[in-house]
Amino acid sequence: MKKTLNAYSEQMNQLMGKAICLPHGPFSELHEAMRYSLNAGGKRIRPVLMQLCYEAVGGKEEIESFLMAIEMIHTYSLIHDDLPAMDDDDLRRGKPTNHMVFGEATAILAGDALLTEAFQIMLSDALRHGGLERIRAAHILSEASGMGGMIGGQILDMASENKTIDLATLDCIQLHKTGALIAAATKMGAVLGGGGSKEIAALEAYGKYIGKVFQIVDDILDAISTAEELGKPVHSDEKNEKNTYLSFYSIEESYAIAKALTDKALKLLEQIPGDTSLLAEIAETLIKRKN
Amino acid sequence: MKKTLNAYSEQMNQLMGKAICLPHGPFSELHEAMRYSLNAGGKRIRPVLMQLCYEAVGGKEEIESFLMAIEMIHTYSLIHDDLPAMDDDDLRRGKPTNHMVFGEATAILAGDALLTEAFQIMLSDALRHGGLERIRAAHILSEASGMGGMIGGQILDMASENKTIDLATLDCIQLHKTGALIAAATKMGAVLGGGGSKEIAALEAYGKYIGKVFQIVDDILDAISTAEELGKPVHSDEKNEKNTYLSFYSIEESYAIAKALTDKALKLLEQIPGDTSLLAEIAETLIKRKN
Repeated sequence: MKKTLNAYSEQMNQLMGKAICLPHGPFSELHEAMRYSLNAGGKRIRPVLMQLCYEAVGGKEEIESFLMAIEMIHTYSLIHDDLPAMDDDDLRRGKPTNHMVFGEATAILAGDALLTEAFQIMLSDALRHGGLERIRAAHILSEASGMGGMIGGQILDMASENKTIDLATLDCIQLHKTGALIAAATKMGAVLGGGGSKEIAALEAYGKYIGKVFQIVDDILDAISTAEELGKPVHSDEKNEKNTYLSFYSIEESYAIAKALTDKALKLLEQIPGDTSLLAEIAETLIKRKN
Repeated sequence: MKKTLNAYSEQMNQLMGKAICLPHGPFSELHEAMRYSLNAGGKRIRPVLMQLCYEAVGGKEEIESFLMAIEMIHTYSLIHDDLPAMDDDDLRRGKPTNHMVFGEATAILAGDALLTEAFQIMLSDALRHGGLERIRAAHILSEASGMGGMIGGQILDMASENKTIDLATLDCIQLHKTGALIAAATKMGAVLGGGGSKEIAALEAYGKYIGKVFQIVDDILDAISTAEELGKPVHSDEKNEKNTYLSFYSIEESYAIAKALTDKALKLLEQIPGDTSLLAEIAETLIKRKN
């Protein structure tokens, strides 16, 4: 029987449970803080996308280190984003944020350690396996998560608070802040699976489109959901006077844009010879999600 | 004419000036914050050690990416250590700390970006050059700076504040917090230069010994210097009720221990066939330093 998306998410949850699982030692408070956020659950969209793209281009080995690494980097970015000096959020996925539980200093260090550990496990893996694909995948992740990617988007986002920005700037923020890591997930999967350059380009572009859909729907849900449905505070964009798609478009218009981007993403999947049915399902599900 | 240690430090200062030197764009505030701390000067002891060990085992190419990477990681750790939630220091190397100039949020992100960029440039370099040495060097740095190294030492240090600890715990803190990155510098240089396993082990051990000397002298200077001499606030250990060597030994005893460790470090250099005169000079200088 074919594996469902939920089965993939569950597989990723189990994989993250295996990470940072060292014997209790002097650093156990740090491990606990790292594991607390890494194991907070969620849909594990980034490692699921990576695994699906890996399989779609014919990858047959295992890429656990890379699946863990991208989720560690995503997790560290959430821990640091939630800090008092940043978004100052108390709740994440329905649970107290890392600094609410472990204090600010440990939360900063847990984020730093997750980021470092992500590279450590990818480099260990690359040393074990040899070959350039794994170095290339780690390099893609380093670019997507750094100053030219996720962090750059975050700083531009902060600089734009309480200011009127144009749509191009909003697109730039979202492409970097959220899109870069999602597109890295799909591209890394394609590279690790030995995909050709056309397949890699198609899956990366698919990742960029669905990353944008993800962000548009995020903006909408922040405005119209309840905290209970969403598992985190709502109206935070309004509270922080952030620019979102709803600064430019109505909810209906935003959904129409998201639909057009979803169609583009689905079209790109036609270029992949392998099974892309679950990648299509993800694209179709993202636009319908309620949390 | 043989290059002096000062010439090596100056070379490293110029190298760091070339890092993160992108055209002004939307992320320029982030770049500015990264460059502010990376270019704050200092003795550049870690990249100098790496370059000297590289040359001592016969390395002939260039390892600029790795020299930059270790200084970026050292710099990010200082930025995060100085944050209000951590040591809450206003002054570093005689200049206002990063968060005093750019604000806390940007300082957190500048640290994150320096850490990420360090891995990005090493991975780019490894892709360009091929071969396993460069992957191995990056892996050494990831281990030394992560939860089993520098960050682990930092968390243990925090957990020990306002508590009475034993000497073994203090040694463990200092070995991880300061020693790991210095030993990584010497080991990486030896690995990148193609050193044999005995040379690599000797230079790593040399790094561990001088790292400990560095920390012992740091503890002494914090207690006996003036802020003017040191370029940063003094008596911060006392203020933060931190355990230091002076909790266990007198200043004279601490200097005697540092001298014995220096002698061990010098002895190890005899195992290296290449020129180690400047490595010896560093070991001898560390114990005499006034800032």
